[in-house]
Amino acid sequence: MIQEIKAARIEKQLQELRTFTDTAAGVTRLPFSPAAKQAVEYLAGCMREAGLDVYTDGTGAVHGIRKGQDARRIVIGSHYDSVPEGGAFDGIAGVVCGIEIARALQALDLHYGLEIVAFNDEEGVRFGEGFLSSKALLGELTARDLKERYDSKGTSIYAAAEQAGYAPARISEDRWKVSGLRAYFEIHVEQGGVLEHAQKKIGLVQGIVGMRRYRIVLTGQADHAGTTPMAMRHDALLPAAAVISGASAAANQHPGAVATVGSLQVFPDAVNTVAGKVILSLDLRSMKEGELDDMEQKILRDLERSAAASGVAYEWTPALASPPGHMDAELLHYLQQTAAGLQAEMLPMNSGAGHDALPISAKVPAAMLFVPSRNGRSHCPEEWSDSKDLAAAAEILCNTIVRMNQEEEK
Amino acid sequence: MIQEIKAARIEKQLQELRTFTDTAAGVTRLPFSPAAKQAVEYLAGCMREAGLDVYTDGTGAVHGIRKGQDARRIVIGSHYDSVPEGGAFDGIAGVVCGIEIARALQALDLHYGLEIVAFNDEEGVRFGEGFLSSKALLGELTARDLKERYDSKGTSIYAAAEQAGYAPARISEDRWKVSGLRAYFEIHVEQGGVLEHAQKKIGLVQGIVGMRRYRIVLTGQADHAGTTPMAMRHDALLPAAAVISGASAAANQHPGAVATVGSLQVFPDAVNTVAGKVILSLDLRSMKEGELDDMEQKILRDLERSAAASGVAYEWTPALASPPGHMDAELLHYLQQTAAGLQAEMLPMNSGAGHDALPISAKVPAAMLFVPSRNGRSHCPEEWSDSKDLAAAAEILCNTIVRMNQEEEK
Repeated sequence: MIQEIKAARIEKQLQELRTFTDTAAGVTRLPFSPAAKQAVEYLAGCMREAGLDVYTDGTGAVHGIRKGQDARRIVIGSHYDSVPEGGAFDGIAGVVCGIEIARALQALDLHYGLEIVAFNDEEGVRFGEGFLSSKALLGELTARDLKERYDSKGTSIYAAAEQAGYAPARISEDRWKVSGLRAYFEIHVEQGGVLEHAQKKIGLVQGIVGMRRYRIVLTGQADHAGTTPMAMRHDALLPAAAVISGASAAANQHPGAVATVGSLQVFPDAVNTVAGKVILSLDLRSMKEGELDDMEQKILRDLERSAAASGVAYEWTPALASPPGHMDAELLHYLQQTAAGLQAEMLPMNSGAGHDALPISAKVPAAMLFVPSRNGRSHCPEEWSDSKDLAAAAEILCNTIVRMNQEEEK
Repeated sequence: MIQEIKAARIEKQLQELRTFTDTAAGVTRLPFSPAAKQAVEYLAGCMREAGLDVYTDGTGAVHGIRKGQDARRIVIGSHYDSVPEGGAFDGIAGVVCGIEIARALQALDLHYGLEIVAFNDEEGVRFGEGFLSSKALLGELTARDLKERYDSKGTSIYAAAEQAGYAPARISEDRWKVSGLRAYFEIHVEQGGVLEHAQKKIGLVQGIVGMRRYRIVLTGQADHAGTTPMAMRHDALLPAAAVISGASAAANQHPGAVATVGSLQVFPDAVNTVAGKVILSLDLRSMKEGELDDMEQKILRDLERSAAASGVAYEWTPALASPPGHMDAELLHYLQQTAAGLQAEMLPMNSGAGHDALPISAKVPAAMLFVPSRNGRSHCPEEWSDSKDLAAAAEILCNTIVRMNQEEEK
């Protein structure tokens, strides 16, 4: 018999976990920090209470496992690290929901094994890349890679993991046998305002957007704002304005796509001096590679035209490119059927942010559920999601897992 | 008989004066600094050698005076303070030229008196306003004003002047009797590239542009760049782009006018976050108030339209407004006639930067000559002007003064 999914217990555990922080404002739980270590120990305890066998791998990810009759496993995961002064829900809420599901299923015989995993370093704040545990488990990182990636103080991931008491040398043995994973599920807070705006409580993620990032450097000439006639200027802010406007116009032509200039610095940044240099970022996201291509070409054309007209030189450097991740059709179907049975309404939507499900979905059938973020806020102390919504998502996922197990037993 | 204006002496004095600096890079001679004090003593010595009676007023301006038959005087001035890590020509070159002219006229009987003045704190770097000596001499500042204006360490102008050994209590006695000033002349480096571009050696300033400055604060909402659809954004960079483009377009409609966004900061300035807040500056300059009005209205309209479309709030705060300064038609005519007689070609132009001649021109007939700045550079260690050009300007001015005196004697 399935035990009840309890919103109150989810809320209580999230309250306790939020105290494991290195700052007073919000939650700061960077990889391998003392706060991260406290969270690892707390989560391991919860997993044991839910009847799981627990081990912590070489990257600091905590795994709680119960065996099934079938060698294959269903995995529920999310991450326990945070951004600096972030919220108490991003990542960790999905881990707590996974543990609650394991607890609810504890008394039930299951065909498949079950693994709850709390990943480390999804955010990439400390070492710059992110998806550390999930990529290591997928076999995409070696111990050597961990020795060659550093934080800003020059500490390698490998050294930081060892100092925290983990065994990074063992990460190749820790790897998942990917063919042994029946499905990967992740519950996550939306981190945006789409669900709240649509007044829906659960989002059924269809895919995770592909992303391209660029660093654009515009080099003009810093001249006196009074003594330099317009025709003699090389104003680096003019092509920057063309990129800002062009990015918005390009994204507006593709429903679901977004384009953002979020970071921009002007040099010398003086009231009475024409901008000599501007550095700006461009971030493009879409579920379709063709839309990413189209936005890139349009914005680049706007930049070229404006830079030529302004006598400004530009560098356009791709800084990151990740393809869209598609959720598994069979798993989406299971989730929809279950939700319909529970009379829960789900909004089909895409994830505009990356999650551990992104690298995993390339190799394992994967699906995600979103719960609303109040006012769409995330990565800030104000981040908040209702534990009732988390419990509702957990209930759908729990029943989906039961259904998948039952169908196999037929 | 007029003595020869010597470019070599101008160059030598500028070389000596550039050593009076508080930094190794470029020239840093902030008001009342030890370097400024050295410059005052050096200039006083040069003035005495040129046969002038010297006194230093309560603001630290050095005056070298010879009496004429007429109680009225012709004044030649410029400033001896500099910006931090500025050049060795801005301001001080005009003082050195003035002293060279006094020396050239030393043996000549003159109808009018002659005053060479080296102003202090034209730049306004230390106390934030500038035109200290010239405004005090015009009677636009009281001792009390000097007690109420402070540098970043909380030292008042009054206290700084006293510490430097001057008598700020006396500034009302120091005042010029404005009706006793026949003319004010200033030689200055152009600080722009117009003369060099036109391959002309001397600029005849027709006027000093009026200036309006604004501080614009755009308040949108800092949202996740991935999870926030375009239609739900309040991107503060979009109206900023409209101001940047709109300022350039508005100024391009008025030959001679300029509009500049030189300073712009984005908050939180993160690659993956929509800009929640942008602070930017806008600087408008023109000889015509009507053009300033027109540019202001056009840019404000662009801002309003874009802010409304983006769901962004804006504050538009005037930070400074100074009316255009017109040079005196009679003095311009004298300078033109003299230059023609010397077969020197002058380019009529406006000054896009403020100078001591700006406040003075409102009360005293005033005129300015510009000499080219190499590569248009100024306010930097690379600032450079040819002493031959300075000597040529001094020669025109010297002969103009002789002509004005002679005409009076007829």
